[in-house]
Amino acid sequence: MVIEILRIGQRLVRDDRVTTHVALVARAFGASKIYMNEVNPEIKNTLNKITETWGGKFEIEFITNWKKVIKEKKANSRKIIHLTMYGESINDLTSSLQKEEKILIVVGAEKVPREIYDIADYNVAVGNQPHSEISALAVLLDRIQKGNQFVTKFENPSREIIPTKKGKNVIMNKTMDK
Amino acid sequence: MVIEILRIGQRLVRDDRVTTHVALVARAFGASKIYMNEVNPEIKNTLNKITETWGGKFEIEFITNWKKVIKEKKANSRKIIHLTMYGESINDLTSSLQKEEKILIVVGAEKVPREIYDIADYNVAVGNQPHSEISALAVLLDRIQKGNQFVTKFENPSREIIPTKKGKNVIMNKTMDK
Repeated sequence: MVIEILRIGQRLVRDDRVTTHVALVARAFGASKIYMNEVNPEIKNTLNKITETWGGKFEIEFITNWKKVIKEKKANSRKIIHLTMYGESINDLTSSLQKEEKILIVVGAEKVPREIYDIADYNVAVGNQPHSEISALAVLLDRIQKGNQFVTKFENPSREIIPTKKGKNVIMNKTMDK
Repeated sequence: MVIEILRIGQRLVRDDRVTTHVALVARAFGASKIYMNEVNPEIKNTLNKITETWGGKFEIEFITNWKKVIKEKKANSRKIIHLTMYGESINDLTSSLQKEEKILIVVGAEKVPREIYDIADYNVAVGNQPHSEISALAVLLDRIQKGNQFVTKFENPSREIIPTKKGKNVIMNKTMDK
């Protein structure tokens, strides 16, 4: 499955850290790319460092026109999944979503433009209680990939964790101070 | 299943919003209580307002001695689940965790004391890539409750969402400006 994320609507600096976590979840849970608007450009460095250390490929693109991104993706037969607490229950949609091949997941901040609801192929609620776009994205990605995102290897890491019952076991593949 | 959360180790103000999201996930995903140290007391008001609006019961307790909390819970035959990217894969542990009846989930901030790894009954990794304690907690709670947390009714809400394909459908059960 090809998975990309579109983060829209951040206006407040206080959302910087939340947006960083959204991007980290996207990367760790198997998305290949995130598009974002209105963010602190520092976020790109943060994510690039993470990718350099922990491996794999992950792309960040800053955009100004989110509608154009959605339009292009739709034209390219990509399904648009909008995460919203007002949508249909993920419990009812999981099996349909698992069958999709190319998706763009739209992750809004507190307020999103009304039109998103109509443009989306799916409006998915990860529960109808308020929580976090970070948790909503993670649960969606976990469900649609059936946990297989945690089996995928991240290629060419500098550091790699060996899962262990107690404590920490980390392999250093390269020197970090190059 | 009785689920409680222990959030430890926040030292930085920049983590306030992350800690708020951790608490929101705890509530929305079926935990009954969260213990927290070193947080902005405002967080209690934020969560209480959410519970008043969206229903159910959710308790927050500020603590100073997290070891005491864990000790008491262990004495009360509660299993301690520590979320850490260094632990065993959640993919391998999900079915054991589903069989537990009373659990305390320990959610650390960036640095946690080494002893936690030994005290815990389970050190669980929601993937071995860095992401967010918010997403880790959400995926764990979703897995161990098999999505049933989204079916549970939150009693006596002022506002209630009716899941819908497009747009928003919200029932106002009481006037909000009391």
